[in-house]
Amino acid sequence: MKSNNLSTLRHSTEHVLTQAMINLYGKKIIMAMGPATNEGFYFDFESKQKISESDFPKIEKEMSKIISKNLVFKHQEISIKKARELFKDNKYKQEWLDEIENKKEKAIVYWTGDQFVDLCSGPHLKSTGQIKAFKLLSIAGAYWHGDEKNKMLTRIYGTAFESKKELDSHLKNLELAEQNNHRKLGKKLELFTIFPELGSGLPVWLPNGYAMRRALEDYMIQLERQFGYQHVLTPHIHKKELFETSGHLKFYKDAMYSSMKIDDEEYYLKPMNCPAGMLIYKHQPKSYRDLPLKLGELGTVYRYEKSGELHGLQRVRGFTQNDAHIFCTKKQLFNQIQEVFDMLKIFYKAIGFDKYSFVLATSDPKAKKYQFCGEKQDWKWAEDSLKQALIKNKLKFVEEIGEAAFYGPKIDIIAENVYGKKDAISTIQIDFNLPEKFKLNYINGKGKKEQPFIIHRALVGSFERFFAFLIEHYAGAFPVWLSPIQAIILTISDKQNKYAKTLTDTLIKRGIRVKLDNRSETLGSKIRDAENQKIPYALIVGAKEVKNNQISVRQRKIGDIGTLTTSKFIEKIKKEIEEKIIN
Amino acid sequence: MKSNNLSTLRHSTEHVLTQAMINLYGKKIIMAMGPATNEGFYFDFESKQKISESDFPKIEKEMSKIISKNLVFKHQEISIKKARELFKDNKYKQEWLDEIENKKEKAIVYWTGDQFVDLCSGPHLKSTGQIKAFKLLSIAGAYWHGDEKNKMLTRIYGTAFESKKELDSHLKNLELAEQNNHRKLGKKLELFTIFPELGSGLPVWLPNGYAMRRALEDYMIQLERQFGYQHVLTPHIHKKELFETSGHLKFYKDAMYSSMKIDDEEYYLKPMNCPAGMLIYKHQPKSYRDLPLKLGELGTVYRYEKSGELHGLQRVRGFTQNDAHIFCTKKQLFNQIQEVFDMLKIFYKAIGFDKYSFVLATSDPKAKKYQFCGEKQDWKWAEDSLKQALIKNKLKFVEEIGEAAFYGPKIDIIAENVYGKKDAISTIQIDFNLPEKFKLNYINGKGKKEQPFIIHRALVGSFERFFAFLIEHYAGAFPVWLSPIQAIILTISDKQNKYAKTLTDTLIKRGIRVKLDNRSETLGSKIRDAENQKIPYALIVGAKEVKNNQISVRQRKIGDIGTLTTSKFIEKIKKEIEEKIIN
Repeated sequence: MKSNNLSTLRHSTEHVLTQAMINLYGKKIIMAMGPATNEGFYFDFESKQKISESDFPKIEKEMSKIISKNLVFKHQEISIKKARELFKDNKYKQEWLDEIENKKEKAIVYWTGDQFVDLCSGPHLKSTGQIKAFKLLSIAGAYWHGDEKNKMLTRIYGTAFESKKELDSHLKNLELAEQNNHRKLGKKLELFTIFPELGSGLPVWLPNGYAMRRALEDYMIQLERQFGYQHVLTPHIHKKELFETSGHLKFYKDAMYSSMKIDDEEYYLKPMNCPAGMLIYKHQPKSYRDLPLKLGELGTVYRYEKSGELHGLQRVRGFTQNDAHIFCTKKQLFNQIQEVFDMLKIFYKAIGFDKYSFVLATSDPKAKKYQFCGEKQDWKWAEDSLKQALIKNKLKFVEEIGEAAFYGPKIDIIAENVYGKKDAISTIQIDFNLPEKFKLNYINGKGKKEQPFIIHRALVGSFERFFAFLIEHYAGAFPVWLSPIQAIILTISDKQNKYAKTLTDTLIKRGIRVKLDNRSETLGSKIRDAENQKIPYALIVGAKEVKNNQISVRQRKIGDIGTLTTSKFIEKIKKEIEEKIIN
Repeated sequence: MKSNNLSTLRHSTEHVLTQAMINLYGKKIIMAMGPATNEGFYFDFESKQKISESDFPKIEKEMSKIISKNLVFKHQEISIKKARELFKDNKYKQEWLDEIENKKEKAIVYWTGDQFVDLCSGPHLKSTGQIKAFKLLSIAGAYWHGDEKNKMLTRIYGTAFESKKELDSHLKNLELAEQNNHRKLGKKLELFTIFPELGSGLPVWLPNGYAMRRALEDYMIQLERQFGYQHVLTPHIHKKELFETSGHLKFYKDAMYSSMKIDDEEYYLKPMNCPAGMLIYKHQPKSYRDLPLKLGELGTVYRYEKSGELHGLQRVRGFTQNDAHIFCTKKQLFNQIQEVFDMLKIFYKAIGFDKYSFVLATSDPKAKKYQFCGEKQDWKWAEDSLKQALIKNKLKFVEEIGEAAFYGPKIDIIAENVYGKKDAISTIQIDFNLPEKFKLNYINGKGKKEQPFIIHRALVGSFERFFAFLIEHYAGAFPVWLSPIQAIILTISDKQNKYAKTLTDTLIKRGIRVKLDNRSETLGSKIRDAENQKIPYALIVGAKEVKNNQISVRQRKIGDIGTLTTSKFIEKIKKEIEEKIIN
C-alpha cells in the first residue's frame, strides 16, 4: 500500500472516530477538524464533557461497531446553502463554509452510511469494513487553527495500519522511542534538568551528565591535539562593535539577545565563537609558515529559539560547540578537509556511530545571495575541494545546489541512531565572509600579503544536541569510557565497608568514575538498582572477596564474569576506556 | 631610619629635583606638586618643553650639584600676601594659596639655601648634603588634582634611600617585579591577551594559557572527585526572578550587568554560581543519608569592575571559579571544614605555594548587619568550627571581628609569592542566607525537616587571578605538570624531520604537551628560543640520535642531562607530571 493509500485509510478511520464520538456524546461535542497525518490521524472537537484516555476503550468499541457494519463512504457535491443547513449547529463548519463561499467553490461532503456526514473533500475508502487495524493513542489540548487567541479544543490522536501486524510493530517502536526519549532517560539517569525559574532552554548539567560531557570534552581535546590543534577560550560577551565588524548584527540579529550596557558600551552574548577567533588569528602577524593554523574552542554560545520550539537538550538557547577554525592557504584546503574526515572517522568510531550520511550544500551561481563575498574561482575551488574529499573517501552524499550559506559552501554530517532517528551532528564550512570582514592576511612565500581560507568545523556541533542524540542511541547504556559512573561497588554487609571504601578510593585515584553503594539493602536490590542506572560494572564485595582480596565482577548485559584482583580489574577497565570499546 | 624619616628624605629629594628643573629649564616649567610616596616621590609640572627619560642623566647631575653644595632647608611662616608675591607667576601655587586663605591659615614655605623656595609644610632634612642615594625612575602624564577635566601635567617619578646599598636592592626588586609582571610574561609566553575591541577586563586565553588552565581544571576535578565531590555545569544567564529569590538583586545589583530581554522575560548574567547550585540541591528531596553533598562547578561569572581598576588577569570582569557548595548537617560542619583544609594542603603543595596565611572573619554580635539571617547559636557554632579547624591544623591566623559577610563567617587564604606579593587565593565561607532564601531542607534521622548548613568554598577563587599570581610566582617557568608546552623537539637538520614527527606524535598520544621545532635555524638558536619560552624539556634529535633511536635531553635550568630512549623519557616526564614535581 502506498503512503497516500495509508493516508486515505487513516482519514476514513478518523471519520469513524468522529461518528463514534457523536454516537456516544451527541450534542455535547462539536466536531472541528480531523486530518490524516504522517503517523496517523487526529480529531479536534469542542466538548462540554471531560473526555480522557480512560474513555478510549469505550470509543474504540463504538468505532469497531461502525466498522463491522461495513458502512459505505459516499462523496456528494452540494450547494453552500444546503451545507449550511446540514451543519447548522456547528460554528466551526460554518467558518469553513465561509472560506469555501469566498472562493466561490461548491461544498463537498462525505457520508458514512446514511446517518453520519462531514464536510470533507476525501478521498476515502469504499466502506468502513476495509479498516483492519486502528488504535487511539493520546489526548491533548489544541487551539483552533493553531492560534492561541482562539478557543482551546480537545484533540484525540490515533493511528491506523493495513494489518494488525503493522500496527503492533508501529506501537512497539513508539513505545521504544518513548522509553528512550532523552528527556525521560535524562531525568531517570539524572543527566540534566531544566529549571523553569532559571530559564527555558537553558539546561543544567547534573553530576552524571557533566561527567559524560567532561569525558567527551577531554577526548575531543586530546584527539584534536593529535591533529595539531591548539585550544583557546574566549569570553561569552563581546562589544557591539565586534559584531558590527563581523556582520552578525546585520545578518544574525534575530538570533541574538538584546544588548547589555557596561559603562557606556553595549555588549552582546556571543551567538558564535568566530569573531573572537578572528581577533586571535589577527593579533600576531602571520606568514605562510604559520599555516595551517588550527584553533579549537569549547565555546558556549547563546541563540534565540522560540519558547514553543525548545525541547530538552535537543533545542536549547545556550549550548557549547566543539568548535574550530582552520586558517590555511588555498593549496592546503583540500588536505585540511581530508584531515577533518580522518578525524570524523576516528570520532564516530569512538562514540559508536556507524550510520551517517553527508549533505554537500553548494551555491547556485545565479542566486544573488552568493555575491556578497569571495571570488568566483575561490567558491569553485572550495566546492570542488569539499566534493573531491567526499569522493576520495568513497562517502555517499547528496548535493543540494543553492543551499550553501551566503558566506560559503559546507558539508553537514547527519547521524542516524539505532531507532532510525536522524540528526545533524557535525559540520564543515568554508567561510569567505570573515577573512574579508576582518581583513585577515598572511605573508606568502613571495613576501606578498594573501588572504587565508577559513574552514569552520565542529565535530560536536552542540554538546547538548549531541547528548540528546547519544542518550537515545544508547538508551542510556553508554560505552564504558563515556559512562557517568563506570563501576559501582556493592557491599554484601556492613562488615565490608572498610574494604569497600579503600577499594573505592583506589579506583578513583586511578581516574575511574566509581560509586560506593553500602546501603543496608539486599544484594539483589542493589544489583537491580545498578542495572537500572545502566552502570557498566558492578563490583561485589562480600566476606569471601575481602578474605581473598578480590572482587566479584558483574558486567552490564552479561552478568557475573567471575572474580578478579583489584589490579586485574583496573587493567581491564582502563583498557576498555583507553580503546573506547563499545559494549 | 623609620619610615617617616624615609618620607622626609624623599620629600627633600623632591625639592632638590624641583630646584634642578628650574635651574635647567627656568620659566619653561611651572612647578605644581611634589609629594613623597610609599615607594619614593614624584613631581608634577607644566612644561613648555618636552622632557623625556633621556633627560634624566642631565637632571640627576644638576641634582647632585645641589646636594654637594649642602644647602640648608629653612622653614618660614609668611603672610598669604607675601606668599602670593613669592609665587606670582605660578597659577598652581596661587590655587593652593586660595585654599590656605579660605581656611584662614598662614602660608608655610621651605627654602633650600637662598635661591629656591617652595610652598610646603615640611618636614625636611637639615640640608641637601644628607641625601646619599637617589634615582629618577620614569616619566608619565598626570591630571592636575587627578581630575581628567583639568590640564594634563608631566610627572617625574623618583626614589631615595638612606644608602646606595638600599637603593640598589630596591632597584633590583623593581626590575625583577617588572620582568615578572604577569601582563608582560603573559604576552611574551602568549598565555593570554585582552582585545579592546572585544571588551576591557575580558581576557582571552591563548593556546599556551588555555593548556595550563585546562591542566589545572583537570587536576581540581580529579582532586575533588577523590574527596567525594560531584560536578555540575549551569548556564551563564538566569531569569530575574531567581536573583530576586537569592537576594542578589537586592544586595549585589551594583556588581551585576544590566538585564537582557528574552521574549517577555528579563535575564541577567550570573555574578555567582550559588543560585543555580541551590536549585540543584532542591530539585530532589534530600535525607540526612544524602549529606554531606558536595557539588562543584567550574563556573564562569561576570561582575562589574570600574574600567580604571581593570588589570591584566588580576582584576577582570569575567572569571571562572573552582567553586563548590557543601551541604551538610550541623554535626558534620567541623569535619567538612577540616576536609577543605586537607584539600588545601594537597593543592598548595601541587602548585608549589609554601607561604600562605589565614584570615578568620567573624561577626560583631553588636552589629546590625548580622541580624538578617541565621540563628545566633548557629553563627557561634560556625565561627567556632572555623576557628577550631584552624587551631587543630596549627595554622596561624588573624581574626577580624566584624569582617564576616552579612550571610556568614569565613576564612580567606592569602598566598605570598616569591617576590613578596600577596593575594587572596582561596576562601571558605558559611552561608546562612541562601538556605533560608531557598527554603532548603533535609529529612533528619527522626523524620523531621531540618535546614542544612552550607559551606561555599573555592580553592581557586578565580582562575584568572590565580594565574596572574602563578605567572609572577614562577616568572613563567612553571612546573612540568602545568607548563603549556612540556617538551619541545629540536631537529639538528632537515634529515631528522621524519623521525622527529613520529616522536612528536608518540608523545602527544601519550598525553604530553609537545611541540616540534624543525625550522632551519641553528641548534643553538633553537635552544635559546626554547629557554626563552621556559619549556621544561628540549629534546634534541640529530643523526646520532636517529641512528641509536634515542633523544638528547636538555632540562630547563640544568642543561644537558644525557641521552634517553623515548620510552625512558616518557616514563620520566610522566612521573614528574603524576607526582606534581616542582623543578
